Amino acid sequence: MEKIPYKIYLNETEMPKAWYNVRADMKKKPAPLIHPGTHQPMTAADLAPVFCEELIAQELDNTTPYIEIPEEIREFYKMYRPSPLVRAYCLEEKLQTPAKIYYKFEGNNTSGSHKLNSSIAQAYYAKKQGLKGVTTVTGAGQWGTALSMACSYFGLDCKVYMVKVSYEQKPFRREVMRTYGASVTPSPSMETEIGRKILAAHPGTTGSLGCAISEAVEVATTNEGYRYVLGSVLNQVLLHQSVIGLEAKAALDKYGVKPDMIIGCAGGGSNLGGLIAPFMGEKLRGEADYRIIAVEPASCPSFTRGKYAYDFCDTGMVCPLAKMYTLGCDFIPAPNHAGGLRYHGMSPVLSELYDGGFMEAVSVPQTKVFEAAEQFARVEGILPAPESAHAIRVAIDEALKCKETGEEKTILFGLTGTGYFDLVAYEQFHNGTMEDYIPTDEDLKASLAKLPPVD
Amino acid sequence: MEKIPYKIYLNETEMPKAWYNVRADMKKKPAPLIHPGTHQPMTAADLAPVFCEELIAQELDNTTPYIEIPEEIREFYKMYRPSPLVRAYCLEEKLQTPAKIYYKFEGNNTSGSHKLNSSIAQAYYAKKQGLKGVTTVTGAGQWGTALSMACSYFGLDCKVYMVKVSYEQKPFRREVMRTYGASVTPSPSMETEIGRKILAAHPGTTGSLGCAISEAVEVATTNEGYRYVLGSVLNQVLLHQSVIGLEAKAALDKYGVKPDMIIGCAGGGSNLGGLIAPFMGEKLRGEADYRIIAVEPASCPSFTRGKYAYDFCDTGMVCPLAKMYTLGCDFIPAPNHAGGLRYHGMSPVLSELYDGGFMEAVSVPQTKVFEAAEQFARVEGILPAPESAHAIRVAIDEALKCKETGEEKTILFGLTGTGYFDLVAYEQFHNGTMEDYIPTDEDLKASLAKLPPVD
Repeated sequence: MEKIPYKIYLNETEMPKAWYNVRADMKKKPAPLIHPGTHQPMTAADLAPVFCEELIAQELDNTTPYIEIPEEIREFYKMYRPSPLVRAYCLEEKLQTPAKIYYKFEGNNTSGSHKLNSSIAQAYYAKKQGLKGVTTVTGAGQWGTALSMACSYFGLDCKVYMVKVSYEQKPFRREVMRTYGASVTPSPSMETEIGRKILAAHPGTTGSLGCAISEAVEVATTNEGYRYVLGSVLNQVLLHQSVIGLEAKAALDKYGVKPDMIIGCAGGGSNLGGLIAPFMGEKLRGEADYRIIAVEPASCPSFTRGKYAYDFCDTGMVCPLAKMYTLGCDFIPAPNHAGGLRYHGMSPVLSELYDGGFMEAVSVPQTKVFEAAEQFARVEGILPAPESAHAIRVAIDEALKCKETGEEKTILFGLTGTGYFDLVAYEQFHNGTMEDYIPTDEDLKASLAKLPPVD
Repeated sequence: MEKIPYKIYLNETEMPKAWYNVRADMKKKPAPLIHPGTHQPMTAADLAPVFCEELIAQELDNTTPYIEIPEEIREFYKMYRPSPLVRAYCLEEKLQTPAKIYYKFEGNNTSGSHKLNSSIAQAYYAKKQGLKGVTTVTGAGQWGTALSMACSYFGLDCKVYMVKVSYEQKPFRREVMRTYGASVTPSPSMETEIGRKILAAHPGTTGSLGCAISEAVEVATTNEGYRYVLGSVLNQVLLHQSVIGLEAKAALDKYGVKPDMIIGCAGGGSNLGGLIAPFMGEKLRGEADYRIIAVEPASCPSFTRGKYAYDFCDTGMVCPLAKMYTLGCDFIPAPNHAGGLRYHGMSPVLSELYDGGFMEAVSVPQTKVFEAAEQFARVEGILPAPESAHAIRVAIDEALKCKETGEEKTILFGLTGTGYFDLVAYEQFHNGTMEDYIPTDEDLKASLAKLPPVD
């Protein structure tokens, strides 16, 4: 048998031509979004003022297993995909583990993460619908960057509302977005009614994601030819991200490799849902079995300490309700450095799969995550994003267990992105000033007590 | 004929097993380094206190065409190489040019540039010689990062002297180096005799590369088991960087493509020398012809406005003299943002080739470079380093000439790295506050007047 190379790249002809919709293979479907006023399932008509038509169809489609990737998107994918599936020989050697470790690396594009896989799809459908532009929110900035790149490619206007504190703390992220022609507005702003209202009530506020969502939705719904788009949680996003798992599986299949476990970090679920999609499909259809592990920060543990219930997707409570593992939409995660994982809820698809026992979840404290990040960077030559390092932490832990037991397990994990914009966090880690923020039971009780009374 | 994919990746088995030493094919060899005191050519014995033995042998070897890449280095190369050779379909489409544009992208590793190709070789030979560690200097930080990564891999101590002003302005670069376990000292420091002397004479100075070199060399020569290493200019560095050109040529050969012109940015010459090596070899042997174009910043135009003469390699005048195109070692380039191109001199190999008429050179102003950078980022999805964007500028200009003439020329250029740490420059560009610094004839006359009296 041919030795497996350090990096497996698919040929262009081997790249996926359709996304895989795991909902089609779920016997128990994820619960529908419901209307915040009527508590009835949201219809396509309800969603039309906010979202693009084709994306609404994908959002509501629980039955079609494969949805063709339009030619234009596949062409764009070729610009930065296939992403490499890397055999972590150097990490294995360093750990002296009999485990075989693979990771799918999504950081080799300027957005620095997997987010581009969905932003390009969303921009494409917006363009196809004849829209002028889209609005969105960004916290850490990866989604905003990815959307800027996609809009630049299709000639769409892109309005990003960036939480004011991030806008000021992360000027570099802002400049990348500007390079791609996006307008980046610190939120709350004087541009919107809700922004002006908030600023009048709380002069000098540094903003929040909830407030930014309210502004972006207002702009999308009050301007002709605009819609609102977002980069995680939604079913459509997980659908687009299935390209990660499909490529990973195709690359492993080429070498006859079957992973024993699949590990990914989980914030809103976009990366994990995409990585595991085709493997989960096999598991749901009873064709194969895999351990599937979601890794979340101990500071924001929606799977491991949250409740499976209907909740608002945003702090501003303007969006539909989703049934998901949640810490309550009032929950304010402590300032850990994995901005992409600081979400109170979780993808409804993953929530249903977790509730159904098809996957596990584990939470890890921030300092342990950065220990793993540094160890990984030193041997694998990639500076991981803090989000991605959550998966690295658990992959290393599992590989060390194999060292104890002597088992030659095959581990696949998702390396979602790079940490070039997270060096303040690395600095804190090096200086020994990084803290682990773990919410108390009382904290969680308080925010969970405010869940809306819906079943 | 098979359609050429967006990205051509060699298989591991197709990766180069030997570096190519272009000096072997040069009829007129580059002039030797000479001793600053005796003005005699530097011997291996002269160089031994400062440099590693095997590297000295490579430095002085003007005759061996191929030098085997040791197995250990080839293994490390597999971690981040082969780098992709990209067909810039999206850029061609945007420019509406009949030209065919290819670029070799070296930015997909944490050092963010091609520098790792040589740092891993230098660290390997230091380790093989039984050294404890190495010292070096860094300005922009790419070389320092690359060396940190290499030293971490081989378990060598790595002491980086970083110009104080950069140390303070670029804390993120410093943190990446610390992630790899390097010690990073702002220069001038109190750790060295020369540092203490400079600080006593100029309290509060923000340092210079010349001063940092003096400190790094002092530490290397006064500590048992240390040597000094550097990332450009030297013959050995160009040798290691030939891996760029060898891979690029192998990838093009696979598809039967022959470039008409090869374009690279030139500061000290490490990237350009590496990229063009095998093509230049064919040209020197009369087997093929290529236009080869060095691109330098208008603010630091050593090829286009300098003199071909012996000069000091460092501002501190502690290093040997090299014959090269130089602006004079006193020349202080204006603060343009391509830190990697702000060097007063040029590789002696490239200088001899330029003097011999085997290549051209052109200089471009900074704002035009950033225009090209932004245009490229928007269609090719990579945020280029300012250094690399010099090559992009000229590649675009040449492609636009083809549009006028209708010629279907094939252009290959080197995309040396990413611009994640250069966003202050992008911000200036977006805000319209970026300036083009072009030295006056008087400026150049003054620094060239101080060339040492050696022929």
